[in-house]
Amino acid sequence: MTDLSSVLSRADQNLDASVERLFELVRIKSISTDPAFKAYCREAAEWLATDLKALGFEASVRDTTGHPMVVGHHPGPSPDAPHVLFYGHYDVQPVDPIELWEDGPFDPRIKDLGNGRKIITGRGSSDDKGQLLTFVEACRAYKDVHGKLPVRVTVLFEGEEESGSPSLKPFLEANAAELKADCALVCDTGMWDADTPAITASLRGLVGEEIIVTAANRDLHSGMYGGAAANPIQILSKVLAGLHDETGRVTVEGFYDGVEETPANIKAAWESLTAGRNDFLGEVGLSELAGERDRSLLELLWARPTCEINGISGGYAGQGFKTVIASKASAKVSFRLVGNQDPEKIRENFRAYVTSKIPADCSVEFLQHGGSPAIQLAYDSPVLTKAKDALSDEWPKPALVIGIGGSIPIVGDFQNMLGMESLLVGFGLSDDRVHSPNEKYDLKSFHKGIRSWARIMAALAG
Amino acid sequence: MTDLSSVLSRADQNLDASVERLFELVRIKSISTDPAFKAYCREAAEWLATDLKALGFEASVRDTTGHPMVVGHHPGPSPDAPHVLFYGHYDVQPVDPIELWEDGPFDPRIKDLGNGRKIITGRGSSDDKGQLLTFVEACRAYKDVHGKLPVRVTVLFEGEEESGSPSLKPFLEANAAELKADCALVCDTGMWDADTPAITASLRGLVGEEIIVTAANRDLHSGMYGGAAANPIQILSKVLAGLHDETGRVTVEGFYDGVEETPANIKAAWESLTAGRNDFLGEVGLSELAGERDRSLLELLWARPTCEINGISGGYAGQGFKTVIASKASAKVSFRLVGNQDPEKIRENFRAYVTSKIPADCSVEFLQHGGSPAIQLAYDSPVLTKAKDALSDEWPKPALVIGIGGSIPIVGDFQNMLGMESLLVGFGLSDDRVHSPNEKYDLKSFHKGIRSWARIMAALAG
Repeated sequence: MTDLSSVLSRADQNLDASVERLFELVRIKSISTDPAFKAYCREAAEWLATDLKALGFEASVRDTTGHPMVVGHHPGPSPDAPHVLFYGHYDVQPVDPIELWEDGPFDPRIKDLGNGRKIITGRGSSDDKGQLLTFVEACRAYKDVHGKLPVRVTVLFEGEEESGSPSLKPFLEANAAELKADCALVCDTGMWDADTPAITASLRGLVGEEIIVTAANRDLHSGMYGGAAANPIQILSKVLAGLHDETGRVTVEGFYDGVEETPANIKAAWESLTAGRNDFLGEVGLSELAGERDRSLLELLWARPTCEINGISGGYAGQGFKTVIASKASAKVSFRLVGNQDPEKIRENFRAYVTSKIPADCSVEFLQHGGSPAIQLAYDSPVLTKAKDALSDEWPKPALVIGIGGSIPIVGDFQNMLGMESLLVGFGLSDDRVHSPNEKYDLKSFHKGIRSWARIMAALAG
Repeated sequence: MTDLSSVLSRADQNLDASVERLFELVRIKSISTDPAFKAYCREAAEWLATDLKALGFEASVRDTTGHPMVVGHHPGPSPDAPHVLFYGHYDVQPVDPIELWEDGPFDPRIKDLGNGRKIITGRGSSDDKGQLLTFVEACRAYKDVHGKLPVRVTVLFEGEEESGSPSLKPFLEANAAELKADCALVCDTGMWDADTPAITASLRGLVGEEIIVTAANRDLHSGMYGGAAANPIQILSKVLAGLHDETGRVTVEGFYDGVEETPANIKAAWESLTAGRNDFLGEVGLSELAGERDRSLLELLWARPTCEINGISGGYAGQGFKTVIASKASAKVSFRLVGNQDPEKIRENFRAYVTSKIPADCSVEFLQHGGSPAIQLAYDSPVLTKAKDALSDEWPKPALVIGIGGSIPIVGDFQNMLGMESLLVGFGLSDDRVHSPNEKYDLKSFHKGIRSWARIMAALAG
C-alpha cells in the first residue's frame, strides 16, 4: 500500500506535465481517414514510440499497409509476473464542421467551467489520446517511484481505429506470439457518470440475415389475382410477426440456448441504475420499454439477446397507390447475441423457421450478413474483481459492471485471434462529444484515470 | 320470332359490308393518349356520327375539353318502349413496338388461320371498335328489315377510355337527363371461351389505405437501442400479419357485412369452370390457391372480398446491411370489395384496428387512396336473365354469368351518376392481344356478336 500511495502522489505531482504531454499529442493532426493527414499519423506514432522508450519500453513504430502501429514491451518485475496488453488508438476523427468549434480542435487548452469542472479541449482529448495517455502516465508514475512497472506490459497503439481498422487483423495474426498476454486492457469506453467508474464486461454479438421471399414470377394486378395468388409481403409479414411472442421473447428454436440469467447482484445494481437513465428513451421520443417483458432497461440493452428487423421492402412504395401484388419482398433481420449463443446455430434455426412459413409454391433466399458471438467477461473473473476494487478505491462511488449493446471489434479479435479476454475500462463521460465539434476530456477523468490505472496495475500484480 | 329470324339473316347477308365498315374505322388512327393523333380522334367520332345518322339516329359529335363524345338517339317503336344506353369507345392504344406487328396496325385485313378460324387484324379491331360495331351493325340489320329498332336506344361513344377518361364524369353530369336510360349495355369485355358467351355481373370495389408508423424521432443504432426501443417495422409486421386469420379471412371488424354468399347454382357453375382455368396460377409460376379456404378460384376472384398489401418500406433496403432501428415504416394496403360492403365503414374499422395495435409511445398516420363500392347486377335481374337466354340461343354453349376481380370505372359512374345498372356483354377472346402488337378480333366474334345484340335487343323489347 505504501508503494501504491507514493505512486499515486507522484501521479498527482506529474499532472501538469502529463497534461502538457497530452497537449503535445493532441496538437498532432492524426486524422486517419483523410490521406492528406497521413504524415501526421506517422508523427503521432513516432511521438508515442519516443515517449515509451523514455519510460524504458522497448518500443517501435511498425509499418502496415495503412497507418503504422506502435508496439512497446516493458519487462515488469520478473519474467513470470502477470502480463497485460494495453490497447489504445492514436488516430482521431475529422474535425468538420470546423466552424462549430469554440477553440481550435488541434489547439488544446484547459478550460474552467466554473462549476468545479475543468476540461481539456481538442480533437482526441478524450477519444482516444487522453484515454490512452492515462495508462502511459500511470506507467510513468510507477517508473518514477520504483524504477519499474508492477506487471509485464505490452502496449499496442493503433492508427486506424476511426477508419475501420483494415490493418489490425493481419497485424494481430502476424504478431500473435509477440502480442499475446494474460489479458488485454482496453481504454476506449466510458464512466457511468462523473463519480462512478465502470467496467464493461459484456458486448453483444451479431447475426445478420437478409431474406427474400418470391411468390409469382412477375408482379400481378391485384384486381385480377387478388384473393387467389400468394402475396409475398403478406407472407413476409407473417414470418416477421412470428419472430417474437406476446411477451417479447424471440421464438426461433433454441434461441435462448447459451443465455444465462445475469447474477442477482448485478441485476439489482442495474435496476437501481435504470432510474438514472429515465431519459434514455425520452431523448428519442419514446417512453415505453419494448422487447422482453419484466426486464429492466439496462438488462435489455446489455444482457438480453434481441431480434430486430432493420429493413423491409416490397411492392410499390412511391407516391400514390398501385394495386399490385409484388413478385418479391425482402427484409433484413439481425440478432444481437449474449453469453454463449451460437451465431451459426441461430442462423440455421432462423432459416428453418422462415422456410417452414413459406407456402409450397413460393420460395425464399437467404443472404448472410456477418456473424459474431457475444463477449462476456465472467462476472467472477479475478481480473474483473481486482479492477473493480481498484476503481472503487479511487472514485467517490463504487465501480459498476456494465455492458454494451453493440460490439467493439478489437475485443472479439483479441478473444478469437489471441485467446485473450479484455478488461474494458475508460474514463470518458457521455458529454465528451467524441466525433463531434468541441470534444473534451474532463481534467478529473484524466487525473483520476491515471491514478486508476496505477491502482489496477498494482491490483493485477498482487 | 319470325321477326328476329329475318333480322339475323339480314345480319348474315350484311357481314361483308359490316367488316368493310370496321376496316374503315380501324384505318382511322384514333390514339387518344398521343396529342399528335388528335385529329384522327375527331375523324373517328365524325365517322361514327355520320354512320349513326344513316341508321336514323339523331346523332352528333359533342365537344369536351379533350376528345369529343358521340351521342345518338333512336326513338324505338314507341315513347314508352324499354330504353337502353349503349356505351363503347372509339379511341385505341398506341401501337408501339411497331416492329412486332405482322401487318400494319391501321391496315386491317381478314386472315384465315387455317383451323377454321378467321381473324380481323389491326389496332382496335377488338378493343373497342370491333366490339362497339357489333351493336351498331345489329341496329342496322334491324333497321334494314323493320325500318325501326325494337327498343329505344341511346349510344355514347367515348374517345378517352385508353387515356383515363378525364372528360367522362363532367359529361355524364352535364348530360344526365339526356343519357339516363333503363339500363346500360357495355361492350368492352370478353367471352369465357370461343364457344361460350359471358355476362359480367359483378365488379369488385376498392378501398386503398397507406399507413405510416412512427416510433422514435430518429433512426437508432440497433446495438445501442435494440431490445428496448420500439421498432416500427416489427409493429407494422404484426399489424399486417393480423389482417388475415389462419383460414385466410380478413379480420377487420364488420368486414364481411354486406357480403352475401353467391347463389348455389352460380357457385356450382364456377366450380366446374375452375377446372378450365388450371393454368391461371401456373402461368405466373404459382400452384396453390391463397386467400380464403374452401372457395374455388373463380369465387375467390369474382365474389369474395380481399385484403392485399401492395407495398411496404422501412429502414435500410440497400445493398449490404445496416444495424438500424428505423424511425418510420409504411405500407400500402387495399381491399377489394363485393356485394354491399361499405368502403368508408371498412376504412374506419381498418384504421381502428391498426390504431389499436400501435404502442402508446408510437403513432400512426393514414393516407386515403380511393374508395368505391362493388358493382353487383342481381343474379335474378330480368335484364340479365333475358340477355343470358338470348346469348345462349346464339352460341354453341349456354351463356355464363361471371365476375371481374377489378373495377371498370364507367360502370360505377353509370350506377352512381345516372342510377342505372350495366349489362356487360362482350365478344373478346383471351388471345385478342388487346393493348399489344397484332391485336385481332375473331370474325366469329364480330359476326355472332352482331347477331347476339340483335337477339338481346329483341329480348329486352319483349
